Amino acid sequence: MWAQTIETSKVLPSTIHKVSKIFQPINIIPKAGHVKTALTSKSQRLMLDLGIIRQASPGSFHFLPLGVRALEKLTLLVDKQMSKIGAQKVIFPSLTNSNLWKSTGRLQDFGAELFTLKDRHDHIYVLSPTHEEAVADLIASVSQMSYKEFPLKLYQTTNKYRDEIKPRFGLMRGRQFIMKDLYSFDVDIEKAKETYAEVCECYNSIFNEIGVDYIKVVGSCGAMGGSLSHEYHYKADIGEDKIVSCSRCGFNANAELAGYDKCSQCGASDSITVHAGIEVGHTFLLGDKYSKALNANYLTEKGKSVPLQMGSYGLGITRILAAAIEFLAKENEIRWPISFAPYTLIIIPPKKGSKEEEVGSYLVQRVHSALESIDSLKDNMLLDDRIQMTIGRRMVDARRVGYPYVIVIGAKSMEKNPIFELHNLTNDQVLYLNEEGLLVYLRKHLEMNK
Amino acid sequence: MWAQTIETSKVLPSTIHKVSKIFQPINIIPKAGHVKTALTSKSQRLMLDLGIIRQASPGSFHFLPLGVRALEKLTLLVDKQMSKIGAQKVIFPSLTNSNLWKSTGRLQDFGAELFTLKDRHDHIYVLSPTHEEAVADLIASVSQMSYKEFPLKLYQTTNKYRDEIKPRFGLMRGRQFIMKDLYSFDVDIEKAKETYAEVCECYNSIFNEIGVDYIKVVGSCGAMGGSLSHEYHYKADIGEDKIVSCSRCGFNANAELAGYDKCSQCGASDSITVHAGIEVGHTFLLGDKYSKALNANYLTEKGKSVPLQMGSYGLGITRILAAAIEFLAKENEIRWPISFAPYTLIIIPPKKGSKEEEVGSYLVQRVHSALESIDSLKDNMLLDDRIQMTIGRRMVDARRVGYPYVIVIGAKSMEKNPIFELHNLTNDQVLYLNEEGLLVYLRKHLEMNK
Repeated sequence: MWAQTIETSKVLPSTIHKVSKIFQPINIIPKAGHVKTALTSKSQRLMLDLGIIRQASPGSFHFLPLGVRALEKLTLLVDKQMSKIGAQKVIFPSLTNSNLWKSTGRLQDFGAELFTLKDRHDHIYVLSPTHEEAVADLIASVSQMSYKEFPLKLYQTTNKYRDEIKPRFGLMRGRQFIMKDLYSFDVDIEKAKETYAEVCECYNSIFNEIGVDYIKVVGSCGAMGGSLSHEYHYKADIGEDKIVSCSRCGFNANAELAGYDKCSQCGASDSITVHAGIEVGHTFLLGDKYSKALNANYLTEKGKSVPLQMGSYGLGITRILAAAIEFLAKENEIRWPISFAPYTLIIIPPKKGSKEEEVGSYLVQRVHSALESIDSLKDNMLLDDRIQMTIGRRMVDARRVGYPYVIVIGAKSMEKNPIFELHNLTNDQVLYLNEEGLLVYLRKHLEMNK
Repeated sequence: MWAQTIETSKVLPSTIHKVSKIFQPINIIPKAGHVKTALTSKSQRLMLDLGIIRQASPGSFHFLPLGVRALEKLTLLVDKQMSKIGAQKVIFPSLTNSNLWKSTGRLQDFGAELFTLKDRHDHIYVLSPTHEEAVADLIASVSQMSYKEFPLKLYQTTNKYRDEIKPRFGLMRGRQFIMKDLYSFDVDIEKAKETYAEVCECYNSIFNEIGVDYIKVVGSCGAMGGSLSHEYHYKADIGEDKIVSCSRCGFNANAELAGYDKCSQCGASDSITVHAGIEVGHTFLLGDKYSKALNANYLTEKGKSVPLQMGSYGLGITRILAAAIEFLAKENEIRWPISFAPYTLIIIPPKKGSKEEEVGSYLVQRVHSALESIDSLKDNMLLDDRIQMTIGRRMVDARRVGYPYVIVIGAKSMEKNPIFELHNLTNDQVLYLNEEGLLVYLRKHLEMNK
C-alpha cells in the first residue's frame, strides 16, 4: 500500500501503525531483467501481489514487513506451546560437518537434495535441512549423562535448506524455509512413546490455536527411519500428499502407507474418501538409529552406557503460513487465521476534504485508545492513513490483504452517538455498532479465538 | 547446573523457571573424538564451561537455552529501538546469487572469505556475510519507486557466514554469526546524511540501553566503500582493533585510519592514548556504489530515474554477547549486563532437611509472587531447586553463571519478619532486607536500568 502518494492528517494518533509507512510493494511486475516468478499456487500469487513476500531466486524469498509480522506471531505461538511441555529452545548451526551425515548414511540417502559446500580447508559441510545428526552429536559430546537427566526436549526455529529439483508453490516447496524442529531423548522405548504422545498432544494444541482445520494422519517413516510417525495436513487442491480417510472408523492415513482400496483399520472399502493434503507437521519416533550411529548414550543406574531413544518433530513454519492462506483465501483476497494475521484490525478514516474528516480524526483516536484495552489488539491495529483515497478504494485494499477486522469511519460517524461500520472478513459479516458495541463484539470474538 | 541429581520439593511454585530443568552441561570436557576447542578468550572459556554455548565445528557454535535467552533479549531490545526510527523488519535469504556479487566487484574483493556453493543446476550462490547486494537488487526489482517513498529503512537480524581463515575468540570471530543489518535508501546525499545521523543516534541509544561502556570512533570504509563510517567498540585486551583517543579534544578513531603519532582533529601529540577494542557495531554512508551497480533507482518529481543513496549499518548480535562478557566478567565468573542476562534474578531456598526448609518453601512462593509485580522480573526469575545441595554450593554456581541478583533464603528467614540476603553481583553488594525492602531496592535498581 506503501507505493502510493501519502498525505497524512496531523491529528492522527502517533502510536498506531500506519499503512503509509509499510514497505509493501503491491501488484508491481518486476522490471525487465529481474527474476520472473512462475506462479504455481494461489497463496504464492497473492503473497507476491500484495507485498508479503518477494522472490529472490528460485525457491527463495524475501520476507517483507507484513510477512515478518505473521512469521513472528506464529513463532511466538509455537514457543509458548513448546514451553508448556518443557521443551527448551536452542540454536544449532546451519552448517554441519558432512562426516556426521556419513555416519548415519544420510549423506547418500539425501543425495542431490543436500546443499553442500567446501570450506577453505577443503572440509565439506552440509547446509542442513534437518538436525538429527547435529543434536545427537551434541548429546554425544556431553560425557556421563545420567538417566536422571531425561526426558530431554530441545528445539529450534531456524532456516533449513534443501536443493529441491523443482521449487514450487512459493513458500510451500522452497529451497530455504523456516522449520521448527524438536528432538526428544529418553532412556527406553516406553518412555520415548510417552514423550511422543505428549508432543503429539502439544502439536494438536498448536494446530487448534492456529485455528485452521487440519487432519492428523498415520504417516510413513520414509528416509527418516524409526517405528511410528504421524503427519499433520491442511487440505488444498495443490497438496502433494493424498490422504485416505475412512468415515466408518475415523482412521486417516497417508495413501503412501495405506493404499486406496480399503481401510487398514476397520477393513471397510465402501467408506473411503481421498483428498489432497499439504503436510505442515510431521512427528517421528526414531528409536536409536541416530543415537547408535553417533554414540548419544546415557549411563543407567548401574553405570552401563546405553543408546538413547530419540524422537523428531517438525513444524513447517513458512509452509504453515502459505498453506493457511492457500486454504482460507478467496481467489483475489487473502484471508489469514486471526492467530497470525500481520495486523488483527485496520481502521479506515474518512477521506480528506469530506464533511466527516474532522470528526473522523477525533474518532480514530477515541476508537483506537478504547480498543487498546483489549490485550490482543495492543500493537496489533493498523490505520489506513492514505486519506487522499476514497473509503471504497481503501476498503478494496483492506479486503485484498485480508485484515480480519475492518472498522470504517463513514457517514454515520456524524451522529450524536457515532456509529462505526465493522467488517468481519472471516465470516463476511458487516455490523453497525457504536463504540461500546465495537468493544463488546471484538472482545467476545477475540477471546473466543484464544 | 542441570547435570546434577535433582530432588525438588513439591510445594515450590510451578510458574517460576527451575535450574534443574535447564539443559546446561557444565564444566564437562568433551568426550574423546569430539571437537576439542582451542580456548582463545575469557568469554569463550566461560561460555563453554558454563553451558551457554557449545562448539559444533571450528568457529561455529550451538546456542544452549541460557544463550538463546540472552540472544532473544538483545534482539528484542534492538527491535524496539529500530521501530523508534521507523526501520522495518524483513528477512533476506542467506543464499544470494553470485551474479549480484560479481556486479559490485565483491565476489573478488571478499575472495576466500566467502562461502559459496553450487546448486544442482551448477548455479553459484554465496552464503551471505552481508546483504548490500540483496537489498539493492530487491529495491531495483520494484519498478517506479517514487521520490515520495523515501527515506526507506529495512533491517533484519539473521545468521551471517564468513569463511574465516582462523576462527577465534569463540563467538567474536566465528564462521557463522548473528548480525543485525540495516540498509537505508534516500533520494540525495543530504537526505542520506540526515538518515545516517538518525541511525547513529539510534545506535547510541542501543548501546546505552545495553549498558556496557562503549566508544564510538571514526572508522575506515575499507572494502565496503562509501564516504563516511563510524565504529562502536567495547574495550578488551583481546580486541583486534586499536583505538586512538585524544584526551585534549575528545576525538576517537580507528588507528588504521588515524595513525598513532598525533591527533588528526586537534593536531596534539602529547594527549594520545591507544587501547584495544572489539568492534561491535559499524555504520557506513555508502553513496551510490551498490545502487548504481544494481540499478536501485527512484523516479524524481520530473520523472527522471536516478540512483538511490544508501547507508549500511551493522550490529554484531552474537559478538555483543561475547564482548560484553569479555569486558564485564571476572576470571572465573560471568557478569552480564542486566539488559540481556538470561535471567535477572535467582532465588536460592534452604537445603533439604535443614530447619529452614519448610518456611523456605513458603517464602519462595511469597517472594516470587511479590517480585512479579516488577514488570522486568516477570518470566525473568529462576529458582535453584537443587535443594539437596548446600546454599553455599549453589551460591558458587549462581556467581559463576552471573545472574545479576541472587536472593538467598537462609537462617534469618526464620525470624518473625523474615530477612532475605540479596546479592547484587554487579556492584558486589550484599544486603539484608525484608520483603518490602527487597521490593523497594529491586524496583529502584531495575527502573534505573531502563
